[in-house]
Amino acid sequence: MKFNYSNMLEEAIGKHGLPLNSLLESRTSLNQIKERIQKKINKDYYPLQLPEVMASHLDKIKKTAKKIQENYENFVIVGIGGSSLGNELLHYAINGIYYNDSISRKTPRIYFMDNIDPESTKTLLTMLDLKKTMFNVITKSGSTAETMQNLLSITDALKKENLDLKKHLIFTTGPEKGLLRKLSYELSVETFAIHPLVGGRYSVLSAVGLLSAAVEGINIDALLRGAELVKKNITKESNPVRCAALLLPLIQYKLYKERGVNINTLFIYSDGLSHLGTWYRQLLSESIGKRFTRSEKQIFTGITPIGVRGATDQHSMLQLFMEGPFDKFIIFIAPVKYRKDFNLKGNLINDENINYLKNKKASQLIKSEFLATQTAIKTSGKPSVAIEIPEINEEELGKLIYFAEYEVVALGEMLNVDPINQPAVEFGKQLTYGIMKRKGFEEKNEKIMEFKKVCEKHIIKIP
Amino acid sequence: MKFNYSNMLEEAIGKHGLPLNSLLESRTSLNQIKERIQKKINKDYYPLQLPEVMASHLDKIKKTAKKIQENYENFVIVGIGGSSLGNELLHYAINGIYYNDSISRKTPRIYFMDNIDPESTKTLLTMLDLKKTMFNVITKSGSTAETMQNLLSITDALKKENLDLKKHLIFTTGPEKGLLRKLSYELSVETFAIHPLVGGRYSVLSAVGLLSAAVEGINIDALLRGAELVKKNITKESNPVRCAALLLPLIQYKLYKERGVNINTLFIYSDGLSHLGTWYRQLLSESIGKRFTRSEKQIFTGITPIGVRGATDQHSMLQLFMEGPFDKFIIFIAPVKYRKDFNLKGNLINDENINYLKNKKASQLIKSEFLATQTAIKTSGKPSVAIEIPEINEEELGKLIYFAEYEVVALGEMLNVDPINQPAVEFGKQLTYGIMKRKGFEEKNEKIMEFKKVCEKHIIKIP
Repeated sequence: MKFNYSNMLEEAIGKHGLPLNSLLESRTSLNQIKERIQKKINKDYYPLQLPEVMASHLDKIKKTAKKIQENYENFVIVGIGGSSLGNELLHYAINGIYYNDSISRKTPRIYFMDNIDPESTKTLLTMLDLKKTMFNVITKSGSTAETMQNLLSITDALKKENLDLKKHLIFTTGPEKGLLRKLSYELSVETFAIHPLVGGRYSVLSAVGLLSAAVEGINIDALLRGAELVKKNITKESNPVRCAALLLPLIQYKLYKERGVNINTLFIYSDGLSHLGTWYRQLLSESIGKRFTRSEKQIFTGITPIGVRGATDQHSMLQLFMEGPFDKFIIFIAPVKYRKDFNLKGNLINDENINYLKNKKASQLIKSEFLATQTAIKTSGKPSVAIEIPEINEEELGKLIYFAEYEVVALGEMLNVDPINQPAVEFGKQLTYGIMKRKGFEEKNEKIMEFKKVCEKHIIKIP
Repeated sequence: MKFNYSNMLEEAIGKHGLPLNSLLESRTSLNQIKERIQKKINKDYYPLQLPEVMASHLDKIKKTAKKIQENYENFVIVGIGGSSLGNELLHYAINGIYYNDSISRKTPRIYFMDNIDPESTKTLLTMLDLKKTMFNVITKSGSTAETMQNLLSITDALKKENLDLKKHLIFTTGPEKGLLRKLSYELSVETFAIHPLVGGRYSVLSAVGLLSAAVEGINIDALLRGAELVKKNITKESNPVRCAALLLPLIQYKLYKERGVNINTLFIYSDGLSHLGTWYRQLLSESIGKRFTRSEKQIFTGITPIGVRGATDQHSMLQLFMEGPFDKFIIFIAPVKYRKDFNLKGNLINDENINYLKNKKASQLIKSEFLATQTAIKTSGKPSVAIEIPEINEEELGKLIYFAEYEVVALGEMLNVDPINQPAVEFGKQLTYGIMKRKGFEEKNEKIMEFKKVCEKHIIKIP
C-alpha cells in the first residue's frame, strides 16, 4: 500500500495546496493525537482492537459458514447502515459485481436486504427458494425498526411455507440485551455477538462482516492479518508525519478548517472496490458530522464524503471537479494489478480512432486514465492524494479498512468531536415511532402533525 | 407530481431558510429565464424538444426491440456517462433491482458495460452466452476511448466463437461522422442516430435511452407522454413563481449564491428510483460545474450533487445532514404508493419492540420515515423541498426526467454558464491518449512525465 501526497502540496498545485512545512510542523500535535487514541483503545476506540480480538472467534464463524455453504444456496444479509455496508464492501471487492451470476461460483448467492422498500422486499422474498435460503439478521441494539420489519416479513414468508425458523435464521446482535437476543433463546436461533463497544460503522471486522464474508469464501484470516499489519505499522512508526493514517486526517483537517474544503471525494478505479466509497461515506459522515457548543456558540462541523468510480465517473463528475469551486479534496484509489486481464486484438476493425488500443493489455487504459485524471486534477489546482494497493485481495482490503477506521478516529480527535457516537439519528427514529403509533412516543406524533401543518402550506401541483 | 417548498422557507426553518418574498420578487427575472430558454429551444436547448421529436421515431425503435426480445436472452448496454446513466435510471426505476433474477421476467436480461475495469469486463464476457447476446454500443462521437475498448473486447470475444458481428451488435451514434458510423456501413450493423444537438446527459429520451427501455418492456410512449405533459405545463403556467421547474433552480441558485450552500442532495425513498440520483449527479455536475472569466477574474462555479437512498441512508448520512454545517439543500423524493405492498402479520413474535409494526402495510414504515426525516431535517434548520409522485411508472418518470432537465438548464441560465457543454473533460482524455501513445498526442505524454516527476516526490509506503 502506497500513500502519495505530492499533489496536495503548494509546491505542486499552487495556492490551493498546503505548504509542506505546515504538515511537518504538526509533528508534536500528531504525536498527541496518537497518544490520545492509544489511551482510549480499550474503551471508546475498542473497534481498533478487533484485528486481535476477533482472531480467537474465527473458528466458530468458519464452522457456521461451512455448514451454510453445504446446506444453502442463498445467503441474505438483513441489516441497515453499518450492519450491511461493510458486508457489501467485502462482497463486491473480493467477489466482484457479477458474483451471483457467475458460472464458476461454488458458494451461496449473496443478497442484501438493506432497505424497507416493499417493492424490493416482496420481489426478493418471492424470488428466492426459501427452503434453500439462510437469513442473517444483524442489529446491535436488536430492535432497529427497518430490520425488525424485515424480520417480520421473513418469518411471515417462512411460516407460509411451513419452514422451521431456526433452520433459516442466524442472528448477529448485542451479547445480552435486545429483542434479537431474547428471540435467539425463544426460537433457538444460532447467534453471534457484537461487542457493546463496537458500533455499526466500525463493525466490519467483527462477526457482523466476517460471517457473510466466510460464507462467500472470503479468506477472513488474511483480512484480519492485513488490518493487524497496518495497526502494527502505526504503532511502530515513531515519526507521525511519516504515518499516513495520521497524515491523511491532518490534510483533511487543514483543508477543511483553513481552506473551507467541505467535500472529500473517494475516486476509486475499480468496479468491485468502489463500494469502499459507500462504506467510507457512512464512516466519515457519522463520525465527523457533529454539533457541539464552545464558548456558548453552537458549532456545526462535518465533511461530506462522496464516492465516485473511475474511469466511469470521469464522464459524470470530472467536469465539476476540474472547473468547479475549490471545495473538494480528492483521494484517488486504485490497484496496481487487476486480477483479471486480457490482451486486446481487434483484427476486425482498422481505424486510427481505435488502433492505439490494440495489442495492449485491457488494464492499460484504466491505468492510464488513473494517471491522466490525477494530472488533470493537479493542473486544475485542486488538492489530491493517491492510495495504491498491489492488487485487490483480503489482506490489502484489511489494510484499507483498518487504515480508514484509524484515520477517521484521528480526524475526530483533531476536530474535537466524538467519532464513535451518532446522537442525531435517534431523533428521526423517535419521530418514526410517533407516526407508527408505537406506545410511549405519542408526543412525537404531535410534532409530526405540527410539521404537516406547515408542510402543506406551499405546494405546487405539476400537471 | 407535487412540489412542496414549505420547508426551505425562513418562516419554517429560521435564518437558514429563504424569505418567501425573495422568491416572489423574482417573478420578472424568472420570466426572462423562461424566455431565454424558449429562444434557444431549437438550437442549444434542443434536447428539451425530444418528447415531440422522438414521437415519430418510436416505430423503428419498437420494431428492433421486438426482434431482440424474440431472438436474444441478454441485452448489454455498452456506453459510459450519459450513454449509460439514463438507461440505468429507466431500468432500475421501472423494472427494479432484481429484474435479471426475476422469475416472472419475459424480456431479455439487461447488463451495463459502463466501465473498463478488466476484472468485470472479463467476467461478464465469459459469463454470457454470446450466441444469445445483443450488444448496444452507444457513443455520440463514435470514438469514446472506454467504449471503443469495450467494442474491441466484444468483437474479439464474438470472433473467438465465430459469431457474425452484425447479428450481435447495434450501434447508437451520431448521424454522419465518427468511427461507429463508418463501421456501421462496413459491418452492416443496424444503427440508431443521436441528433448532433443532443449531448450525453440530455439523451435519455432519445434513441440512447429508448431502445434498451423498449427491449426490457418499458412503455416508451408513456415515458414521452409524461415528459410532454411537463413541457406543456411549463409553457402554460403564466406565473413563473408557480412553476416548480423554475422555482427549484431559483432556490438552488439563491442558496448557493447567498448562503454558500454548495451541496444538493437527492434523498430518494425507493430502491429502484434511487438511480435518479446517479443520473442527476451527472446532469447537475457537468451542466453547472464551470469556470469562466468575468471582469478579468476567474470564477469557479458549481454545486455538488449527491444521491442518497431512503430509508437506508438515514443510517449512513442523516447524522451529518442533521448536525453538520449548513452547506446542504435536500430534495426529498418519494412515490405516494409503492407498486408492490403486503401486510405484516408476525404471529410468531410477540414483543413491544416489534408489535407496533404488526398488522400494517409494509409500506407504512418507509412512508413514516419519509415524513419523519423531513421533520427532523426541518427541526435541524436545514432547507429542504419534497417531490412526491403518485407511483413509479413510465409517465411519472418521463415527467421527472423532463422536469430535471429543464430545471438544470434554467439553473445554468441563472448562473450564466452554458449548461450544455463540458470543456474540461476533453483535457483528461487527451492526457490519456498521450499515455496510451496515440498518434498526435505526443506532447501530452510529456505533461504526464513531468507530473510523474512531481508525483513521486512525497510517498509513504505502508507496511
